Amino acid sequence: MAGNSFGTAFRITTFGESHGISVGVIVDGVPPGISLSETDIQPDMDRRKPGQSDMTSPRKESDTVTITSGVFEGRTTGTPLMIMLQNTNTISSDYNDVMDKYRPGHADYTYQKKYGIRDWRGSGRASGRETAARVAAGAVAKKILAAQGISLQAYTLAAAGIVCEKYIPEQIESNSMRACDPDAALKMKAIVEQLIKEGNSAGGIVECRIKGVSPGLGEPVFDKLEADLAKGIMSIGAVKGFEIGEGFACAHMKGSQHNDAMNAKGFLTNHAGGISGGISTGQEIIFRAAVKPTASISSLQHSIDLNGNETEIRTKGRHDPIICPRIIPVMEAMAAIVLCDHLLRLNAQRSLQQS
Amino acid sequence: MAGNSFGTAFRITTFGESHGISVGVIVDGVPPGISLSETDIQPDMDRRKPGQSDMTSPRKESDTVTITSGVFEGRTTGTPLMIMLQNTNTISSDYNDVMDKYRPGHADYTYQKKYGIRDWRGSGRASGRETAARVAAGAVAKKILAAQGISLQAYTLAAAGIVCEKYIPEQIESNSMRACDPDAALKMKAIVEQLIKEGNSAGGIVECRIKGVSPGLGEPVFDKLEADLAKGIMSIGAVKGFEIGEGFACAHMKGSQHNDAMNAKGFLTNHAGGISGGISTGQEIIFRAAVKPTASISSLQHSIDLNGNETEIRTKGRHDPIICPRIIPVMEAMAAIVLCDHLLRLNAQRSLQQS
Amino acid sequence: MAGNSFGTAFRITTFGESHGISVGVIVDGVPPGISLSETDIQPDMDRRKPGQSDMTSPRKESDTVTITSGVFEGRTTGTPLMIMLQNTNTISSDYNDVMDKYRPGHADYTYQKKYGIRDWRGSGRASGRETAARVAAGAVAKKILAAQGISLQAYTLAAAGIVCEKYIPEQIESNSMRACDPDAALKMKAIVEQLIKEGNSAGGIVECRIKGVSPGLGEPVFDKLEADLAKGIMSIGAVKGFEIGEGFACAHMKGSQHNDAMNAKGFLTNHAGGISGGISTGQEIIFRAAVKPTASISSLQHSIDLNGNETEIRTKGRHDPIICPRIIPVMEAMAAIVLCDHLLRLNAQRSLQQS
Amino acid sequence: MAGNSFGTAFRITTFGESHGISVGVIVDGVPPGISLSETDIQPDMDRRKPGQSDMTSPRKESDTVTITSGVFEGRTTGTPLMIMLQNTNTISSDYNDVMDKYRPGHADYTYQKKYGIRDWRGSGRASGRETAARVAAGAVAKKILAAQGISLQAYTLAAAGIVCEKYIPEQIESNSMRACDPDAALKMKAIVEQLIKEGNSAGGIVECRIKGVSPGLGEPVFDKLEADLAKGIMSIGAVKGFEIGEGFACAHMKGSQHNDAMNAKGFLTNHAGGISGGISTGQEIIFRAAVKPTASISSLQHSIDLNGNETEIRTKGRHDPIICPRIIPVMEAMAAIVLCDHLLRLNAQRSLQQS
Repeated sequence: MAGNSFGTAFRITTFGESHGISVGVIVDGVPPGISLSETDIQPDMDRRKPGQSDMTSPRKESDTVTITSGVFEGRTTGTPLMIMLQNTNTISSDYNDVMDKYRPGHADYTYQKKYGIRDWRGSGRASGRETAARVAAGAVAKKILAAQGISLQAYTLAAAGIVCEKYIPEQIESNSMRACDPDAALKMKAIVEQLIKEGNSAGGIVECRIKGVSPGLGEPVFDKLEADLAKGIMSIGAVKGFEIGEGFACAHMKGSQHNDAMNAKGFLTNHAGGISGGISTGQEIIFRAAVKPTASISSLQHSIDLNGNETEIRTKGRHDPIICPRIIPVMEAMAAIVLCDHLLRLNAQRSLQQS
Repeated sequence: MAGNSFGTAFRITTFGESHGISVGVIVDGVPPGISLSETDIQPDMDRRKPGQSDMTSPRKESDTVTITSGVFEGRTTGTPLMIMLQNTNTISSDYNDVMDKYRPGHADYTYQKKYGIRDWRGSGRASGRETAARVAAGAVAKKILAAQGISLQAYTLAAAGIVCEKYIPEQIESNSMRACDPDAALKMKAIVEQLIKEGNSAGGIVECRIKGVSPGLGEPVFDKLEADLAKGIMSIGAVKGFEIGEGFACAHMKGSQHNDAMNAKGFLTNHAGGISGGISTGQEIIFRAAVKPTASISSLQHSIDLNGNETEIRTKGRHDPIICPRIIPVMEAMAAIVLCDHLLRLNAQRSLQQS
Repeated sequence: MAGNSFGTAFRITTFGESHGISVGVIVDGVPPGISLSETDIQPDMDRRKPGQSDMTSPRKESDTVTITSGVFEGRTTGTPLMIMLQNTNTISSDYNDVMDKYRPGHADYTYQKKYGIRDWRGSGRASGRETAARVAAGAVAKKILAAQGISLQAYTLAAAGIVCEKYIPEQIESNSMRACDPDAALKMKAIVEQLIKEGNSAGGIVECRIKGVSPGLGEPVFDKLEADLAKGIMSIGAVKGFEIGEGFACAHMKGSQHNDAMNAKGFLTNHAGGISGGISTGQEIIFRAAVKPTASISSLQHSIDLNGNETEIRTKGRHDPIICPRIIPVMEAMAAIVLCDHLLRLNAQRSLQQS
Repeated sequence: MAGNSFGTAFRITTFGESHGISVGVIVDGVPPGISLSETDIQPDMDRRKPGQSDMTSPRKESDTVTITSGVFEGRTTGTPLMIMLQNTNTISSDYNDVMDKYRPGHADYTYQKKYGIRDWRGSGRASGRETAARVAAGAVAKKILAAQGISLQAYTLAAAGIVCEKYIPEQIESNSMRACDPDAALKMKAIVEQLIKEGNSAGGIVECRIKGVSPGLGEPVFDKLEADLAKGIMSIGAVKGFEIGEGFACAHMKGSQHNDAMNAKGFLTNHAGGISGGISTGQEIIFRAAVKPTASISSLQHSIDLNGNETEIRTKGRHDPIICPRIIPVMEAMAAIVLCDHLLRLNAQRSLQQS
């Protein structure tokens, strides 16, 4: 009820603060017999970790994961996985002057109001560092899905006012924006570099494509597949919007334009984004998420302190000038967890189904 | 696990198909002692029911609710509410020719693939009629929230290509589009009337404002208030996108533009939409949802039958040319349920909190 | 969170008060394609209903169930079942003089303290009538289990101080005590008849045997099969104890006596009662429950009224002199629901298991 | 769904195997502002740890807990607690010869059948070591309850055939049986010492008393307080029965004997054990649990190996000759977690209750 778990049949529970001892996750519901080690998880950790490029925070974290339970002789046992990361490179003194001030765009004010206490070091639990645990769990989900022929790829579709005009999946991981259009990536990067100089930051849009999902995943009426995806994605800090298929563009379409007709070979179009009535259609699932500009900027902002007195603040610490590149593995992770959960749920139903 | 419940502390479970005997909801977690009768619920039912204007389906349903448990001598007892509606005006023969065909834009195909069987009469469980149960439960949530000073209002912000340019809350319920701009409403209506003649339909955007929420609602990290709102809203059939505050527009903003600064009187702006770090800020909560054009259109479309043979289909039955006006009370209901749930959760935390 | 749902993958949510309009249940998670009608459910309803023998309350309820959703053309659709019973023979005036008094052994006092309000007519939600909904849902679970070769039978093992000395399963349903020993049943009945004359009541022990469960059901560590059975059974009003296998007798045994050794044909004994480490062994599952003497007795008892003033009370209304015969189908129902739930959960795990 | 979480509003999720790297627990729903450090937890850990007396396994574990998240400057923050213990004194070689054999009375066979794989070192997840995590979480619950005036004490009521005849709470922690009757404890100890020599083990009964609970805890109908206690206690390995108040003895009582009458000062008796209709009465809560004799005995037993071939086995490793003394803090922990959970749930209800 306190909100630190996600999923039903495949269920994760996370813990940890930015500048605490460690962050991590318990993954419950992992089927037994799956070959699994840290090397399955580390690549996605590395895609999320800070310090990987000039588009990410210079904080250096090795983000080395350890699996401390649930695996025996290289295979999962069906008991809960515990995956953990130590927090090594914490410089809490960076945060000394935000101890008693609310940083604009951060959760300082709301945590203080909700809990009456907050770990102000590096944003505590509200830090993006919390998402490292999601990525670790997501890597497990991805491995399970891969065995079923399901793969996911997210990428920057727009950033800093620039929108990708091409979709070249092979080039996504080779540019520091993780954009699907390398030319657009260059333009994005140029603008972001300018923003860094101005002590400012940029927002963007991330798109995710999921291939290989067979029809039937999703549980009407409340646990529609898109509803669970929306929750998973919107639960990532900095995400302010979610849409599937045509998304908001559908508002200006006619029924005859939006409906996906069929012929003997299947659907003729995919305006719905691969989900109909809350259930996967068997087509590619496509969703997008809006990512706000990084709240931590070094230019001067108006704020108040814990006593309500007016003050000014300049956010120090080590921050990303744009969140998109590092949020990409987090979105993939949340989507993978949702799919893995629904796959187990569908399979449970089918196991006792009669025809 | 089969997806027909929503909420944690305030929890609804719905049942019923479009052309079955009845639809309804069990509401668990209603605090005792609340004055409640059918008259508290009926007004929202009437706002959702078909046949209320020329912008809605001509199907005539009185949608009269009955509370069959949980209330004694006019007050809630703390035991589960059961609220039910009979299905009276069902013309299943309208659907005879879709019995073995998949209607484009409908869930016929996915239900068949998931379950191997489907109640094809009026879309069965996938019908919008399912949302009547949500509205009934939402009316209870609204009454509980009202006693805490919280109110919600949703309205059409855009439809059929027309975007509202004014926000006049008093006029929302007086035009058949439930638009916040009566002039825009006239234009929308004219276009929709033309679409009806063409056997077509329109999409739109609904916006919802929630007033009176104090700071502290929402449970990081997965049950962020916006994540639960997103799930609740995206679980409504026909919704293809959700955004909060600036939403997708934030993608093109700078941090300095998007951050909400504060002074001694509070926040200077509300780009975040009333939620920060997953927790309500105390400001107005504003979200928007994309509503796809009605799938049921009478113009001819390509499809296949249960055996995979190609066919053509013209959707009969009685349908809305645009879903926005009737989805508005449904969105308010889902948002009210989320808030009521989080209010109970926050209160539980606070009850044992130490300072 | 308010406690009116049970189960995870196979999940029931009940509503209704003794003298309200109706009682009923939503069953979520029923696999599609199961042949189902009211005639599958009615026999167990009849075993639970009052007025079936001289050992049960003379209240006459037909307890006729109606399935109002989730079934189409005789088969389940995978959408929620709603099963309902009308309350027809309610004589609330019987309860007028307990309106403001607490009946000893009843939940009057605790409901009043918890909720500040209570439906005093026939005990409201705290009435045994609530269990009718469980039996309806349990009949569905039993039908699903039967297709997997699993069957359940509960019976009176002891009552009114008499303990069965034989186990003759065929004769259980032919005596009004539902005892497994017809000779013991005669003695029990004679004592209970005497107690009726004295305005008193009797307690007893019910035993349940479950056959056909294959190894693997149950989820360590908290959702052990016996833990979920214990919760399900202890959640039935009047049950004061639960034990499995040797149960409390194990306290006086040695490890060498209690351990179930194995040979090539399987287990040599079944002291554990068919569950080891929370997981079914494949043997018969055997549990017992203690059933308290009916609280409603017509002899004079000391109590207080709502204002705390001392008073005396004689419980009127129509009551069972012993609860065992009618609680038997309720226990079977709860056990069936637990098994069905764990079968779905096990199947989900196995569906993605690798070897 | 995989069973490694317990509780609703106060929710624990555990991980870890006997001979893995560590065991631990995430506690979600801890109210903020509670003063908390390892020293609040360690005393109960020490009561549970092996090697504390001649009645417990000689395995030496310091069982030193570390809180790695959720506490800031000595107070809880409302974010999840992570509490962990390293496994230091693991001698897996003790288990080499059970690698491919099923030990009678252990979960070896069922884990193998359920999962197709098992961590055979020290029973893996099925080890009593798993309960260390429960005790850690329970200590947090106890501290929260203590601030509300609620305290719990469990003790050995019967063991090795000897039943306590006195109840002297002050002496419980001063004898190695943790019996409430020091004279009985001496007799128990003498018998157990004899059993050790014989390579055998003993069972027993543990009783628990909870003081200071006000009326109103418990959620009818399925989450009755006794139902949740039963599940919590029965989920502890080795527990084979649960009863409340008179428990199984009620089967032989009359209604007039069992009902708890009231006068102006309150209840005259407490046959119900402090819970009526699933809700606490405000009296002392008393329950008992049956604890089976330790399965690990060094005398020779019949069994089979993984291939189904007959074999004989002598359980090595370091084991308790009787489980009662060490299970006592585990039972207190589970009961404390249940109460803390229900206290939060009751408070949520009351926060919006109207009168």
